[in-house]
Formats: sequence, structure tokens, C-alpha cells
Amino acid sequence: MPLDLTQDAVSLTRALVDIESVSRNEAEIADAVEVALAALPHLTTTRRGNTVIARTHLGLPERVVIAGHLDTVPLNDNLPSRLDESAGILHGLGTCDMKGGDAVILRLAATVTEPNRDLTFILYEAEEIEAEFNGLNLLSQSDPDLMTADFAILMEPSNAVVEAGCQGTLRVDVRTTGERAHSARSWRGVNAIHGAAEVLARLNAYEARRPVIDGLEYHEGLNAVFIRGGVAGNVLPDECVVEVNFRFAPDRSEAEAEQFVREFFDGFEVTLTDTSPGALPGLDRPAAKAFIDAVGGEVNPKFGWTDVARFTGLGVPAVNFGPGDPMLAHKQEEHVPIEHIERCEQALRTWLTSAVEEAE
Amino acid sequence: MPLDLTQDAVSLTRALVDIESVSRNEAEIADAVEVALAALPHLTTTRRGNTVIARTHLGLPERVVIAGHLDTVPLNDNLPSRLDESAGILHGLGTCDMKGGDAVILRLAATVTEPNRDLTFILYEAEEIEAEFNGLNLLSQSDPDLMTADFAILMEPSNAVVEAGCQGTLRVDVRTTGERAHSARSWRGVNAIHGAAEVLARLNAYEARRPVIDGLEYHEGLNAVFIRGGVAGNVLPDECVVEVNFRFAPDRSEAEAEQFVREFFDGFEVTLTDTSPGALPGLDRPAAKAFIDAVGGEVNPKFGWTDVARFTGLGVPAVNFGPGDPMLAHKQEEHVPIEHIERCEQALRTWLTSAVEEAE
Repeated sequence: MPLDLTQDAVSLTRALVDIESVSRNEAEIADAVEVALAALPHLTTTRRGNTVIARTHLGLPERVVIAGHLDTVPLNDNLPSRLDESAGILHGLGTCDMKGGDAVILRLAATVTEPNRDLTFILYEAEEIEAEFNGLNLLSQSDPDLMTADFAILMEPSNAVVEAGCQGTLRVDVRTTGERAHSARSWRGVNAIHGAAEVLARLNAYEARRPVIDGLEYHEGLNAVFIRGGVAGNVLPDECVVEVNFRFAPDRSEAEAEQFVREFFDGFEVTLTDTSPGALPGLDRPAAKAFIDAVGGEVNPKFGWTDVARFTGLGVPAVNFGPGDPMLAHKQEEHVPIEHIERCEQALRTWLTSAVEEAE
Repeated sequence: MPLDLTQDAVSLTRALVDIESVSRNEAEIADAVEVALAALPHLTTTRRGNTVIARTHLGLPERVVIAGHLDTVPLNDNLPSRLDESAGILHGLGTCDMKGGDAVILRLAATVTEPNRDLTFILYEAEEIEAEFNGLNLLSQSDPDLMTADFAILMEPSNAVVEAGCQGTLRVDVRTTGERAHSARSWRGVNAIHGAAEVLARLNAYEARRPVIDGLEYHEGLNAVFIRGGVAGNVLPDECVVEVNFRFAPDRSEAEAEQFVREFFDGFEVTLTDTSPGALPGLDRPAAKAFIDAVGGEVNPKFGWTDVARFTGLGVPAVNFGPGDPMLAHKQEEHVPIEHIERCEQALRTWLTSAVEEAE
């Protein structure tokens, strides 16, 4: 059944939610989105894998990307969607993360036919899984020109308030080693789990840095997310691994963040397993300023890592601005307030159709 | 092929080793042992599952059990057996733990037809796995009379030296709890892995008790053998479990050992998961004294838990005395010195055929 882009954004959200699209299974929803966008004569539509790009070509001085991912985390007995009209809430997998935002994108694509800035809409695959599958990551490699813009808005859930920048994230394995021995003769060995006491003691002593950047207070965090060790119930273990996740403010580079962690665990074997850079809020850029003024001026820092960092990597300032509470993402009870969807759509429509101020 | 009990104990060890008998797969070796023992007219042979019992009924004032298990840990590319004659070593799975001892038992059963004490030979199944399958455990429940004796010798590897008593063992799970949160907003949660720092710090501060019992110095040990915690790479974990193994000297009961561990981890959630009592050396018993004198007087404490504790539970003093280094048990390079096999056989033969001193 084709997507009807003339319906309101809440109905459109429901239609999108009811097309199941767990990561790596986005063909059906991408087909529906592509057909609907290709029918719009003012847009040029392109497809790469299950990522769909639709652009205006009005020759305007500014271009804005508005992007959202089409995939969801796995089902958790939370489909199909369920609308609670009295509470004004739409329930179901993907309502919050992030088909409410996708619906706003599609509504804007269908109805803002004469925008004040050239527009690039990107609806992409596989945001919820490994970066190697991420549609925006793949696009930035295959067709970076399609992501070129003066400003980007990622419609990730942010309570319909602008969240700027994002913190970086890296993971290390902190390893202690010992020497196996039968636990009945434990004095013949060295217990690697006991050796991890100091690793955990340092984590307990950690004090988070909270730098203020462009007026936004970030909040770092250093946490063990996994610990494992053990050979058998009667053997002193010769290895214990503490997997530590460092969330770092965007004024540190990945290399600086890694250096901090290595110094923090000085004396232990530290292996970097995963790293993604933060993104500076970039609120000093004219396009960002204009957008924030247009949507009311309130800006919060983004603590979690999102694909805004990919735009930052391409030199495009980017913010998160979408319906839904990010704390509800990936939960069985995921839902979105209808009012958020309507507010986001209205704010973007106003910004994209009002007179553009000249850059200073 | 039937077992030939007229061959020397080393050849017999090889024959037993080359019958693969990983725990729960002892039917073939038990069949061979049963047939060979049943052919000996001076013994009465009984079978329970894959456990074989053979007894003399000479009406002598003392009865001695000599026991060994028939099973091995899993194969590790270490079968068939390989004899290094120049080094005097027999290699292969089960050579040390404990078919060398089993061969000695079978040789004694076949050749000591007029012993100075009544004899009960027990060759049993499933010692290497959960107690519910252990042939000696099952026999103690179904036919405790078949285990009745004045003294028991378990031919577990002990470097052909008497090891008396054994330490007890118990395991507890020490659990810390917290509150999940996204690691990007870690201040909203409580990290249970960080909470385990104190558990490990206490283990590092532990000082082992070394009580002397019947002249033997035991050596307790308290060790983390497993640690686990973690939900996802971006989530503060709400649970961490440290599995702790306490090896306790035989002057503590299981209840006293449990109380010690609970007090040691006071303030944490402690769950008892497994417990086995120690066995006092019992060297003050006449039968034990006579045996130790007969084999040369040297006695060491047994640190590891063995089935001697099952005899102790039935009121039968018991020791370990068998060929092979217990440190080689369960290793790929498992092997046994031929000299150990010969020495154990000779010592037992001398003890069982010389004149019995009157008890004081």
C-alpha cells in the first residue's frame, strides 16, 4: 500500500510504524518512501541501498539537510501502533525513535514546495546497528556531495527541543592477568580477578568533567559496562577484563580522549576497541543561529552520540531536533506525544517558509 | 577384548587408558572390569550402574576399602596412551587421574587372594562431574553396607605418598546491585560493577588461616573464581556477581565455613551455591596408623577435595594414596611415572600380606 503524504503527520507516523523495519529489514519501508517521494515533481529522488535522498534544486544561497533513520531496534511485543487519543500519545516500536521525525520529514517534503532554502531530505537505513551498515555512513563514503549543506537537522528524539553537538564515546578493555592454579592450592597462583580491584577503585574515584561549550554544559562519564573473568569453579583465573565506556565532551578529540583513559588506567593493559568522535555544538555558525532563533531559542547539550557527528565530520554544523523523549527509545513502552510531532512540523515549516535574514 | 589381570600394572594401566571413558560414557570400561573381577573365585562381584564392587568374605577382624574412579575428564587430543620407556613415563588421558591407581586395584584384586584384612574393591563412575552422578555418592545412598569398612584408601593421584583428610569447599555468589542508565547520562544510574570494588578489595586483604591438625598443616583459601556483569556496551549495569570459592580446613564444619564467608562479606548479598565438607585426617585411628607405618610414615595434608570425604561421612577414616602428580590431572600433558605405579602396588601388597599387629 503506497504511503499517502497528504495525511497529517500523526497518521503518517502510524503508517510508518506499522511497516516493520528492524535494522537490515528496511526494504519495504524504503520502497514505500521512495515511491512517495519520487511522485513529488519538485524533488529529485535518489536511492542507495535502503537509503532514500530527495532534493530541491532552486539555486538558493543556503542548503539544509533534514535527516532521519528508517530502522528500529528489534520487536518487543510493541507493534502495531496504538493511538491513545485522550492522552494524546502514540504507542509502539519506532514511534519515538524515530518515525515521528520521519513523518515530519515526509510532510515537509510533500508540502513545502517553495522553501526559502534548498532542501535535502535523507531517510536512511541501519542506524541502530554497527556503523559499517549505517546508511548515513555509507552515503558519506559513496556520495558525500549528497550530504553537502550549510546546516543539518537530525530528527532524533530530543523532546522537540534543539540538542546541539554530541559527546564522543570510546570503549577500552582494561585487562588484568595472573597465573592459574587449582583453587585448593591458591597460593601457587595469582588471581586476576582480585587484580581488578584497583581498576574498579579508580573508577569509583573518578570525578566527571563538566565543560561549558557555546554556553552548553556537557557532562562526561567513565563507566565499566562489562566485566568478565573465570576459568572454572575450582581454578584461579588468569585473566579479568573490564570493558570501560568513556563518554567525552566534544572539546576533546578521540585521540585526547584515548590518552586520558590510558593515563587514567596507567599500569594496566588498555586496548581501544571502539571510538566515535564528539561533535561541537557549532552554535556560532549563522545557519545554526538562524534555526535556533526560529524555533524559540532553547538549546540543550546532547549527551548521547548521534549521527550529527557524521555531518560535523563533513564540516556541516548539525543539531538534533525531533519529537519524543530519548529516554523512551529502545524501551518496550516506547511512545511519542502527538504534540511533539505537531510542534516539530510547525517549527520547521515556519523556519523554511519565512523570509530569510541576510547573513551578517 | 577382555582385560588380562595377569599382566603387570603398567601394561594394565595402558589397557585401561586405551578404553575411552569420559564421564557418563563408562559402560565399556565397567563391563571389562566387571568381567575380569567376576572371573576371580575369591571375590564376590556386584554392579550398580557403571560402578563395580568386588569383596572378599574371609571373616577377618578388619575390612579395608580400596577405591578408584573409572571416568576421565574430556579428551584433549591425548589418547591413545604413549609409553616413554627411557623416561619411565606413561602419557595419556587418565594415566594420572586415575587409571594407574585403578590398575593397582585390579592387580591386588587378582593376586592378593589371601589378604590379612577383608577387602572391598570399588571401581566407580562419574567422579569428574556433578555429585548427583558420582558412583560413590550413589552407592553410599543405595548400598551403604558395601562401603562399610575400618579404613578406606582412595587411589587418587598423590605422588605415591599418603595424603590425609581433605579440605572442604563451598561457593557463594556475592552480588552487587545498581540502577541501569544510558552510559551517556551515567549520573542517572548506579553502576553495580563499580560496587564490586569493595568485594575485590576485601578478597585482596584476606589472610589465609593455616591450622595444624593431627600434625598436618592445612592452608585455607578464599578466591573469586568468576566475575560477571554487564547489560550492553552503552548501559550502566545493574548487577555484578562475584563467584567466590572458599577452601576450608577440616576443623571447620560446612555451617561454620558458610558463617565465616557471610561475615567476611557482611553488607553484601551472599548466596550459597555449593558446599562439600572437609574430612579430618583421622590419623589417630588404629587402621590409619598401621597403614601409614606400613608405607613408610610420610603423610601430607590433602588440600583438594576428594571422595575421601564421603567415607568420612560414613564414619570410615580414609586417605588418598595413589600414583601420579595431582598437578597434572586434567592437563593435556597428563602422565604418570611408572615408578609411582610400581611403588604403590608394592606398598599395598606388603601391607595386605604381612602379619597384622594386634590393635593396642
